[in-house]
Parts: sequence; C-alpha cells; structure tokens
Amino acid sequence: MCLLRLNTKEQVSSTSIISKQSGYHSESKAKEYKHVCKRACQRAVDRLKAGALAVEAVTAALVELEDSPFTNAGMGSNLNLSGGIECDASIMDGKSLHYGAVGAISGIKNPVLVANRLLSEAQRGKLSAGRIPPCFLVGRGAHDWAVSHGIPPCPSEKMATKFSLSAYKRNKRKMELAEKLDTGHNQTKKRRQSCENENGSGCLDTVGAVVVDLEGNVAAAVSSGGLAMKHPGRVGQAAHYGCGCWAENTCNMNPYSTAVSTSGCGEHLIRTMLARECSTAMQSEDAHQALLEAMQNKFISSPFLASEDRVLGGVIVLRCCRCVEAPPSQNIQGILVEFLWSHTTESMCVGYMSAQDSKAKTHISRLPPGTVPGQCLAIEGGVCRLSVVE
Amino acid sequence: MCLLRLNTKEQVSSTSIISKQSGYHSESKAKEYKHVCKRACQRAVDRLKAGALAVEAVTAALVELEDSPFTNAGMGSNLNLSGGIECDASIMDGKSLHYGAVGAISGIKNPVLVANRLLSEAQRGKLSAGRIPPCFLVGRGAHDWAVSHGIPPCPSEKMATKFSLSAYKRNKRKMELAEKLDTGHNQTKKRRQSCENENGSGCLDTVGAVVVDLEGNVAAAVSSGGLAMKHPGRVGQAAHYGCGCWAENTCNMNPYSTAVSTSGCGEHLIRTMLARECSTAMQSEDAHQALLEAMQNKFISSPFLASEDRVLGGVIVLRCCRCVEAPPSQNIQGILVEFLWSHTTESMCVGYMSAQDSKAKTHISRLPPGTVPGQCLAIEGGVCRLSVVE
Repeated sequence: MCLLRLNTKEQVSSTSIISKQSGYHSESKAKEYKHVCKRACQRAVDRLKAGALAVEAVTAALVELEDSPFTNAGMGSNLNLSGGIECDASIMDGKSLHYGAVGAISGIKNPVLVANRLLSEAQRGKLSAGRIPPCFLVGRGAHDWAVSHGIPPCPSEKMATKFSLSAYKRNKRKMELAEKLDTGHNQTKKRRQSCENENGSGCLDTVGAVVVDLEGNVAAAVSSGGLAMKHPGRVGQAAHYGCGCWAENTCNMNPYSTAVSTSGCGEHLIRTMLARECSTAMQSEDAHQALLEAMQNKFISSPFLASEDRVLGGVIVLRCCRCVEAPPSQNIQGILVEFLWSHTTESMCVGYMSAQDSKAKTHISRLPPGTVPGQCLAIEGGVCRLSVVE
Repeated sequence: MCLLRLNTKEQVSSTSIISKQSGYHSESKAKEYKHVCKRACQRAVDRLKAGALAVEAVTAALVELEDSPFTNAGMGSNLNLSGGIECDASIMDGKSLHYGAVGAISGIKNPVLVANRLLSEAQRGKLSAGRIPPCFLVGRGAHDWAVSHGIPPCPSEKMATKFSLSAYKRNKRKMELAEKLDTGHNQTKKRRQSCENENGSGCLDTVGAVVVDLEGNVAAAVSSGGLAMKHPGRVGQAAHYGCGCWAENTCNMNPYSTAVSTSGCGEHLIRTMLARECSTAMQSEDAHQALLEAMQNKFISSPFLASEDRVLGGVIVLRCCRCVEAPPSQNIQGILVEFLWSHTTESMCVGYMSAQDSKAKTHISRLPPGTVPGQCLAIEGGVCRLSVVE
C-alpha cells in the first residue's frame, strides 16, 4: 500500500477528513468549491484537535459546507417545483451506530444540526412514558422539533441565493418549453424526448464528509437541497438510512472501521443503498478493488437500476485499522487510514486534511475525457498513517 | 420439506398471500383481527384470480387492512403527540425492483395507494425536462401529490375512531402523570423510570402483506399509523426502503424469489434494515433456519440495537421457486411457496390463502408462555405448491 502522508512525530491528535460535492464543476466555479472544501476540512480538524469526537467534527464540516451559497445544501439549496427550499440531511456515528435524519425540512439553515441533535437525543434513551425517540423526522414536524430543541429557524427566503433563484427561473422556463414542445405528442414520447434533452447532472452539488477521530471512531454525514424542481415533499438519499451515509467502527465481525458518504441522484442512491453497500465492500482486503467493484456491480450495473440509462452518483470512503508502529512498550499506536473517492458524475470536488497537515488538500476529480457520465467511473484515493499516543 | 397444501388439478391461477399485524392481541380483539385478515386475503386472491400482478394484489390487501378501524394503519391509526394522524406506507415490486413510499402523510385514507402510485409513475420513466420521478414523498407534499394524481383526500377527523381517540386521551394522561412523577428527579432518572413502567408493545398493530402471483412475481407492502404519541413528522420503518418491506424476484444471483414485510417498533426495524436482511437470509437453503438466525443475529442481538433492552418486531416472509411437477410435455409447472412468520412481540396475527383455497386461514401466533417479549421469538410457517399452466 502506498502512503501519501506519514505521521509527524510532534503530532499527538491524529485525524483525517474528506468532504465532497458531486455533479458538474465548471472551471470558474472550481476555485470557489475548493475554498469551501478547505474551510470545511479546517473546521473539522480544529474541532478534532480540541478533542471532539468524529461525530462532532463531521457536523462542524457539514455546517461550513451548508453555509456556503455555492453548494446545494442549507444556504443556496436548489428550489423545488413550488419555489420553496426543502432539505435532507443525515448523520451516523460509527461508535454507537446511532443515526439521525431529517427529510424535506424547511426554514432551518443547517439541517445537519437537526440530524445530529436527533442522534444525540436518541442516544440518551427513552422519552417520558416509555416512548422511543425518533431517528427520522420530516417536514413541518422536523422544523418544529428543531426549534423546540434550540435550533434557530431561518426564513426560507434568506436561504435562497441570486444563483438559486436564477437557476429556478431558468429551469421553470425549460420545463414550460419542454411541455409546450410536447403538445400533440403522447405521454411516452414526451417523457422520452425530455429525457434525451437533459442529462440532469448539473444540479447535484450536495455535500458530505467522513471523519476519523483520534480514538479511531468514524462518523459520516450528508446534506442536500435535493434535485432542482423536485416535487415538494420529495426526500432523497441524504435522509435515507443506508443510502446517504454510513459509519461503523471496527468490531468482532469487521476488521476495518468504515465511513461512507454519497452524492448524486437521490433515487439511484436510495434504490442501490450505495452507502451501506460500499461500507460492506470495504471489509475485503484491497480497498481500491473493493470500491471499484462496488461502484461497478452495485451501482452502474445494479439490477435495481436496470431501466436507467445513466446512473449518477459519487462516494467518499474512509477505512481505518489500528497498526502498531513502535515497540508496544512505548504505547504509540497508529491508525492506518485509506481514503478513496469514486464517481460516475462528470466531476467531484474532494478535500482532505489530517491533524498533521497545515492546510487541506483539494482536488476536482473528473471522468476521463471521452467517457460517458453515468456509465463510467473515476476512482482515486490515498493512504495516510496517523499516530495516537494512548 | 413439508407441504401444507397441495395444488388441485382444476386450479389454474395459483397464488399465495399472508397478511399480518404485530403487537399485543387480546382474546376479545382476536376475532376482529382474524376477520380483517380473512377479508384482506380474499381481496388479494380475488384480484389475482382476475389476472392481477402481485403488486396490484398486495395493494388490494393493504387497502382492506387500512380500512379496518381495528388496525393501526389508515382508518383508526394511532394519534400523534398533537392529536393528528400521520401515516407511513411503502410497497416494492419484485419484478421491476421499483419501490414507492410515503411518510407522515395526513388526510389520505389509504396511504398504500399513494405508495403504489409513486411506484407505477416511477416505472413510466422520467418526467418533463428530464426530471427523475420521486420514489419517496412526505408530509404536505405527499398529500398534494396524491390528490393531484386522483387519490381522494379524507378529513383527518374522519380517520380517527372512538378507540384511537380514547387511547390518545389515556396516553396523554399517562404522559402527564409520568412527567409529574418525575418532578425533582433528574432527566436520566426520569427517562429510566418511565422506560421501566412501559413496554410500549401495546400499539404496534401495523399491517403488511406479501404476495406471489401466477407468473411467480413477488411483491410486498406495509402500512402504519406509527407509534402512539409519536412526534409529528416522525417517519417509521413502514416508509423506509429496505426496512418495512422488500421484494425481489429470482435472478441469476438469487435462486429464490423473496418477499418480506415487517411490523413493530419502527426505530428498531429501521436501524437493523430488517426486511432486506431477512430477504438476503432467505437465499440460503433452509428457510426456517435462515429466518431464525436472521431474527436472532440481525435483530434481537444486532450490534445496531446493543443499547436496547427489548427489541420489538415481527416479519412475514414468502419465498418461492419454480418446480416441475409433471412431465415437461404437459407444460404444467408448479411454484413451491414457503411462507413463514416470526416475531419478538407478544403476538402476531397472520392470515394466508392461495387461489386453491376456498377461504383464508388465520392464526394468532404468540410467544411461548414465560418468555420475555423483545428478547425471545416465535417462528412458524408452512409450505404449499401452486400449479401454473403455461
């Protein structure tokens, strides 16, 4: 295995993070995306250095990504068919295996904070009169629960940006035109024709992150404004257990801790349960090969998507195991971290940073020239070893 | 393998169905439950005899179950914390592997009809301007989509019953008392104490069905009003992909067609993805042993529920494979159907019927005396062979 970065001796807290957005990234926007990714990495690493657990650090990264007007999550989310903003987010803690999610939530600037709060409330045990705390809340109920738990509301109009509003107008015109053009055609033709005019990959810039903390715990999170012009109430993979994110610490059955976060077309990611599938695959020896096969067999060629011509999505994956790097008497242990990303969308922006790094590395991964999005994939990654003094 | 029922020679269309409710069933209510199950079985078999596919038949069964005021689904659903009704439902077609779900939907008498409509709309391909049709809608958006697709709205007050209203009042008093009793105790104590006073298994009567049609296609569906006194916006397993129901026709990789529907505590069923886990398990040779192990290892002893003292749920499972029962020249093929149920709740009401049967069989399965709900399980089932002339 190739080590991209080696641990530095002076570093005690040892951590790693990747955050991503998937979809199409123009050169002009690439710089902005990279900046956002860098800030999000920095935010998570700062929290980790201060002793935070993975689940807190991944939340901090997501808040930064949601706050950027350039991402399709929180502030600047895609507008739905009615011109409203409804967000999905979820988070999973590999240590407790608890999970929290919100779907189609409006009027909350940082949906990931609600997901994280649901997770932490569920960890506290049952509610009064033996009621089981919810792990997944949607719509108005989710909003009210968030506000009653101290998460401030935010008027929806403040969450729209110049960019999201003009995209909405453009999309609306496009839809009206498509429907006009179809006059006189039957329903089947209409659907085929519209489908051929679009590849739908322009608006998938949802965000996610995977983190390992200095104790070796993993966590994953994802947040999305959903597809542009989606029907109100539509919930995508970002709120779906097993589909948007997955995190599992190592245990008797699993030699590796794994964390996965997905991005792309929600329906494709739901029906293939891509986050969990990738996590399961990562338990086999060769991480790169395992992810390649999972993306090929469980996503692009999945029997669940047999009727789809283009299968759009991307994943970021982190897997870790402990390794002793000094005589046991010195009590110095290392965590071997493999981090990978793969996507079938035209591009995916990735950032990563460990507590040893002075700043985050960012990269816009693109499909090889001439390949068809949704039918081919890109896969990259690296390895680093992090030191933990116990 | 033991055959419970043999195919009759005059029978051409050959079908099987199980419908269930899980929770606690008093002797007085048992009769009502059995009646509902019988009617639902009959409804599905009537549709199958008329040439309907599994997915249509399973919907018909669910409509009958939802319409009963005695079940916690559709009419008569549990009331939530605000006294409202919000339902979850989902359906999966083993042939197309398509899926439709609604969560926290109000003002619709038959949530399964919305789930089924989402499934069939998704099968028709993309919407105008290349938009991908949703597979999961929640809340107000789900209601509006349903109404715009011809599913009639129903005022929520009409969906409450004398029984659900009095249960709400009882629960409300219980909650107030629990919170009063806790004055002066800290939050941790409060939670513990309340938890010990209740086992929470009295209100889990959600409904589901699994069907195989005369072509050998399987389908599964589930519908639920959710936990009593749940927070508005809470979505349970019944709307969760892989958790509430699962159906997969046989394919290269799977020797058996399988259909599963789950019932019980939504959060437990979500975090263990029980429907999909059972479906996967059913591909091994001994169906009874596979289900027993899945319920034990993937549910009761699941690492995902390590912090839970009682894990409440039930499943109905159907698995089929083709078997030739006459010389190939006669073109008579049979479908070997194994049907099983298992639960950790005190009881589960099950009904089943094939097109050969003149009426449905029903059964209230109970845990063995002296065993603890949520820690032990009951498992039963049978086999029947259905004939198909091709």
